[in-house]
Formats: sequence, C-alpha cells, structure tokens
Amino acid sequence: MFAMSSGRRALLEQLLALKDEAGSHSPSMLTIVEEVPEVAIDVDACFLSNPYATELFLRRLEADLIATRRIRDVLEFYPSQNTVVAANLAGFLQVPAERIFIGNGAIEVIQAVLHRFAKRKIAVNIPTFSSYYEFAPEGVQVVQHKLNKADDYRLDVAAYLDFIRRERPDTAVLINPNNPDGGYLPFAELRTILAGLREVETVIVDESFIHFAFEDDQFTMRSAIGLLDDHPGLVVVKSMSKDFGIAGIRAGYGVMAPQRVSALLANGYLWNINGLAEYFFKLYVEPDFQREYELVRVRYINESQEFFRALGRLPGVRITPSMANFVLLELIDGPPADDFVFFMLAAHGVYTRTCSDKIGLQGHYVRIASRTLEQNRRIIAAIQASLEAWQPEDAESTSASSLAG
Amino acid sequence: MFAMSSGRRALLEQLLALKDEAGSHSPSMLTIVEEVPEVAIDVDACFLSNPYATELFLRRLEADLIATRRIRDVLEFYPSQNTVVAANLAGFLQVPAERIFIGNGAIEVIQAVLHRFAKRKIAVNIPTFSSYYEFAPEGVQVVQHKLNKADDYRLDVAAYLDFIRRERPDTAVLINPNNPDGGYLPFAELRTILAGLREVETVIVDESFIHFAFEDDQFTMRSAIGLLDDHPGLVVVKSMSKDFGIAGIRAGYGVMAPQRVSALLANGYLWNINGLAEYFFKLYVEPDFQREYELVRVRYINESQEFFRALGRLPGVRITPSMANFVLLELIDGPPADDFVFFMLAAHGVYTRTCSDKIGLQGHYVRIASRTLEQNRRIIAAIQASLEAWQPEDAESTSASSLAG
Repeated sequence: MFAMSSGRRALLEQLLALKDEAGSHSPSMLTIVEEVPEVAIDVDACFLSNPYATELFLRRLEADLIATRRIRDVLEFYPSQNTVVAANLAGFLQVPAERIFIGNGAIEVIQAVLHRFAKRKIAVNIPTFSSYYEFAPEGVQVVQHKLNKADDYRLDVAAYLDFIRRERPDTAVLINPNNPDGGYLPFAELRTILAGLREVETVIVDESFIHFAFEDDQFTMRSAIGLLDDHPGLVVVKSMSKDFGIAGIRAGYGVMAPQRVSALLANGYLWNINGLAEYFFKLYVEPDFQREYELVRVRYINESQEFFRALGRLPGVRITPSMANFVLLELIDGPPADDFVFFMLAAHGVYTRTCSDKIGLQGHYVRIASRTLEQNRRIIAAIQASLEAWQPEDAESTSASSLAG
Repeated sequence: MFAMSSGRRALLEQLLALKDEAGSHSPSMLTIVEEVPEVAIDVDACFLSNPYATELFLRRLEADLIATRRIRDVLEFYPSQNTVVAANLAGFLQVPAERIFIGNGAIEVIQAVLHRFAKRKIAVNIPTFSSYYEFAPEGVQVVQHKLNKADDYRLDVAAYLDFIRRERPDTAVLINPNNPDGGYLPFAELRTILAGLREVETVIVDESFIHFAFEDDQFTMRSAIGLLDDHPGLVVVKSMSKDFGIAGIRAGYGVMAPQRVSALLANGYLWNINGLAEYFFKLYVEPDFQREYELVRVRYINESQEFFRALGRLPGVRITPSMANFVLLELIDGPPADDFVFFMLAAHGVYTRTCSDKIGLQGHYVRIASRTLEQNRRIIAAIQASLEAWQPEDAESTSASSLAG
C-alpha cells in the first residue's frame, strides 16, 4: 500500500477503474484527461515517440499549413488514393511503389494483412504487441513462442526455428525491436531466421521501432525492406508515430509482394489516408527534412540509452536491455504494476505503461518511454519517490488505519 | 470538338490521361493541382459538400485548436478507441452506443460491413456509388437492379421488391438520396421496402446525403436509424464529409445491430479514428454548434434547389430531380462527358464530375455539385460558354485545321 492522502487514493481508484475498461491497451492521455479531469499529467512516459522529432514536425506543419492557411485544403478535400501516396514514398524507401501499402496507422496494415493473408495459424513471440493475436481472424489459431525472462526476453534463433518447424504456422510475426521489451534482433540473425522461414507463407517483420536501433557507432538503421526480393512472403510493417509522435494523424505503411498490395486495394482502402497523413508523407521524404530528422534521431537515441542506464542504477528495480525508445522496468518485491503506475500518475503526474495485461511477462513490469532530457529526469525522480512511498504488505494495516483516521 | 487554343488542348489531353489513371473515381483536386500545375481551379463542383458548413466548422477549428495551440494534442496523441467516440455520439443520435461503429470515413464502414457480413450475393441499384460493387469480397456475386432513365432513375418499390424476391440476395444496398442521381426515397416508401426485405440478412441504407433531403417545409430530415429495432438486419451508413466538407479528416459512422459492432471491434478497428475526426465528432454533438449548423443546412438546401432549377432552364441539357446537393446534367446531343468536364476545367477552371465511368447511366452525364451562391453563378456561366464552344462532328474538320494553322 502506498502512503497517500484519501483524496489521492480516490483518484487512484478512478484511474484503476478506467484501466479495467480499456482492456489490453492503456487508456489514452486524452481519455484520462476527459474522464478524470482532476489528474494533472506532467510527463506522458506511456507514449512512445521521439519528442524532438515531434517538435521538428510541428514547426514545419506550422510554417507549411497553419501560417499559410493551407490546412483548409488538407482538411476539406479528398486525400489522394493509396497508390498516389505510395508512389511518393517509393523513391525514398528504394522499393517499387507497387510493393507499398499505405495504412491508417500501422495498426490498419496489421489488420489488413492478418485478415487477408493469415489462413490457419499465426506464430507470435510473447511478450508481444497484443494486436498480433487479438486481430487474428475467426477460426485462425495463434501459437505462442515464449521468450525467456532469464535471457532478458531475447529471441534465440535456434529455439525459434525449432518452434516454427514443430508448429508449421502459415504466418509468423517478428517485432524488431520487440514491443514491450525492446529486444533487438541484429540484421544478420534476422537473415538467418528468414532463411529458416521459407515454408512460412507470410512473415511479418514489424519495424515500428527500428529507427531507434543501431549496430554501429553511426547509428545506421538496418531495415528488412531490402530482403523482399529474396523472401517474397515477407511483410514489413512500419508505424510513423514512434519516430515522430504523430499518433493522432494515423500514418503507417507496409512493404510486401506487389500481388498482395493489389489484392488489398482491389476491394478496399480507397481513401484510408487522411489529408494530414498525406501531408506528413510528403514532408517525410524531403531531403532537407530528413537531414534535420537524422540529427534529432541520433540525439534521442543517445539520451534514451543514457536514461535506460540511469534507470538501471535505481534500487529495487531491474531493466531489460532495450534498442527501442522504451524500457521494461521490473519492480522487484515492489508494488503490483497497476498500483505503481496509477500511483505515479495520481501523485507525480507521470504516466507510464503498466504491463499487467501483457501475456508472457514473468513479474511486475512497467514500460517507461524515453522523453526529453528534462522529462527523463522527472521520470526518474517520480519512480524513486514512488518506490519510497511503497509500504510492503506487513506494514499495510498500520498505514490503512492511519489513512482511515 | 471544342474551339480552343493548342495550349488549352494540350492541357485537356493531360487531364483526360489523369482521369484514365484514376479509374472509377475522379482524380482529387489535390492530385490534379499536383500533376497538372498549369490548371487553375476556380470552382470545385465535383466535391460534394455544403461550403457554408465547412466555413462554420473551420471557424470553430481555428478558435478551438489553432488559436489555442491545442491542435498539437490532437495530432500527437493516440485518439480514443472506437467505443469512446461512439459513446460521445450516442446521445445525439438517440441510439445506444453499442449500435454505433465509427469509421475512417463512411468508406471504411462500407468496406467493413461488406467484407464481414456479405456472404453470397449483394444487390445494388444502378447507377450507384461504385464502392458498393467494387468492395464486394472475393467470391461474392453482385446483382444489379437497373433504375430507369424514363423514370428519372427513381426507385419503383414494387419492381424492386420483385427483383429482391427473384434474386434472393443476402445483402441489399439502398443509397438515399441516391448517388449519382440524387433520387430520394420518401420515408414511407423506405419503410415499405424494409418490410419487404425481412429475409435479406443485411440491408445497407446509405444516408450520406440525407441532410439535404426533406419532405416538409421545415426541411426535417428523416433518418432510418430509428428503424433498427424493427429491422435488425439494417445497417445505416453515414459520411460526414458531405454535410461538412471535411473529406480530408475522414469521418463517418454506421448504425447496426450491437452484435455486429462487437464482431467488427473484436479483431480490428482499434485506433481507426484520427485525432481531428475525434475532435469533429465532439463538436458535432454540441447543441450550439447544431443550432448554427441547422441555419446553414437550410440555407444551402434552398440555394441548391434554386441552382438545380436554373440549370434545368439551360438549352441543350436536361436535369434529373435531386434531393441531394448535386444534380445529374445530361448533355443532349452534346459533347461526350469526359471532353466536356475537362474542357470546363481547362478553359473555365470549373471542375465537375464526369459520369462516363458510372454503370447504368444511359447518356452523356455530368454530376454538378451545388456550391456557394456566387460559385453556382460561375458554374452556370461556364456550362453555357462550354456548350457554345462545342462544335458538333460535321464542323470538326474546319475547326481542327484552323487550330493547326
């Protein structure tokens, strides 16, 4: 039990109830602010994005659309069709436009691919992003390859290929870096895995966090997109909200065999990209914008890795090595994750992601997103203070009665 | 052949090529401006929206989001989940939230409903909105009930019910008012039809243009939403872009049996509503906003009906009675619709919708949207001038040689 005032405790109860309603995703900040207006959110460390890239994007949006009033065109008129936006992205991604399917967020790509191409059995690694099993079409089985806590949830290539040979799924999902643990599969290992998955009809590689991973000191990103020629069953999924913090705009894409793109577009997805998402994709491929983005990408990676190290030095917690922009924090002998997360929010205004709903995590885990340098300092202070306010079970009766009095 | 300069003719050729690429939908204004920058679009009478409502919405957006900088929250953070937005709309629509599915535009609702619930055979009336047959899932047949030119494409209830009894579709589509002709099925006739469709598992009534239809001198809107209790197979589809001119935001919804909403949300559509669409729906249900909207709705209906009457008085054309915000204009012994539409654009900057790609229209038709009072005057002048510039076949050799010279 946390030492706190009865007012704060009432707030905590309200927040826990809201979490119960939201199911396997945390309630969004907008929903929280709406439903529990008493909460003052100071830092949103649930939200997975590079805040420097958000600033960069918003400055350009202000200059391009707001100052010029061009935003009216973007909101009023029909956006371009899927193939037009794909053609715009093709040169930048260095793949033919016919391989690109633009989604209303990566989540639409995931849904489209699972609903259209998954036939019998989907293999996921757990822990994973819940939509990969929740979006399985009716009648399609989901089998789980359990990543091991003792290995920091790292994917063991040989064990994984054994699992695939045994289960014979038609669809396999790899998230790289993985969500929610941030574990990274180096490019060479990914190639080995793909070579071993030739019998699997659809291999989804979700690279929504790949912009934060690196293998050299230039922080070079290694995307699987180029491997499609050798692996026609590959589907690379990419969200743009992680890099840019534009979750409200809904922009993502998938790279896959051209006949799959045609199949999806043949009877759907006509105007699934809104005007602002179309504007975003145009901006994204501009060489000047890319140069500026690269600077904030590298800065953010450096700060994030430093943040993770600082978190790892706190007493009472353990972190999992991460190549993403978030880190899993295990509360050792500490409070249950839900209580901890909503206490942090009610008492310190710092919102983090409880992992109590994540299948496959063995312990009390909280997922912490890296934010700005200054916000990361406030997150660390709030975690420290919250752990200090925690009174383990045997002290509970005392603290409860003192609150009641 | 139109009398025009060789420069204009080259422009016309470019535009016709762009139309060929766009398939069964006209290229959007944004695409045209991008691909053929020489074109100066003065009036977009292809775009189906109430421009006064767009002004009203944009004024509020400016005050609420831009002046306050709150637009950042809307773009940056995850929007609320489908059920949260549905709950916000439920009171206003006077239906339980569990019956509402929010879509990324009405087109997503159409896709979701056809892909999930259409099983064997879809019955459409033609002419119709092409997505109702183009989005048919693989293996599902589409049967066409042909509306008659001699009846101004009006739906004959008895003939329609005969067709349904003969074809036994599991899914039937009614657009009311119909697109592209604007024909309106009065509420009493709609009830008769629904009573005759009890064996049809899914009856889609698309009311995207219902805000422009009326049966009394108060311009009262008669929605089928309230009929769901008596007709559990009913699915009412509603786009918001027609009323408000916010096609770039992508906002629509469907009202249907709660178990259908649950089935759709069980494995998809998690964050399909972007932040601006969520903002729109919140604004839409505000009583003050509704009062202001009602004024511009009635003004626009009056002006549109007056515009249609003026078009009908032009020589060389014939109009179809319309209760929507557009009208079908038949070019009698005039130019082919594609040539006419892109000549109007190249020579007068007025963009209209060619119906050359619309199945079921027997003649050369152009669909003209009603815009502001002043723009409607310019549309009429452009149509008149274009018809005067048209030289029928036998005069062609003369004009072609005069151009070449």
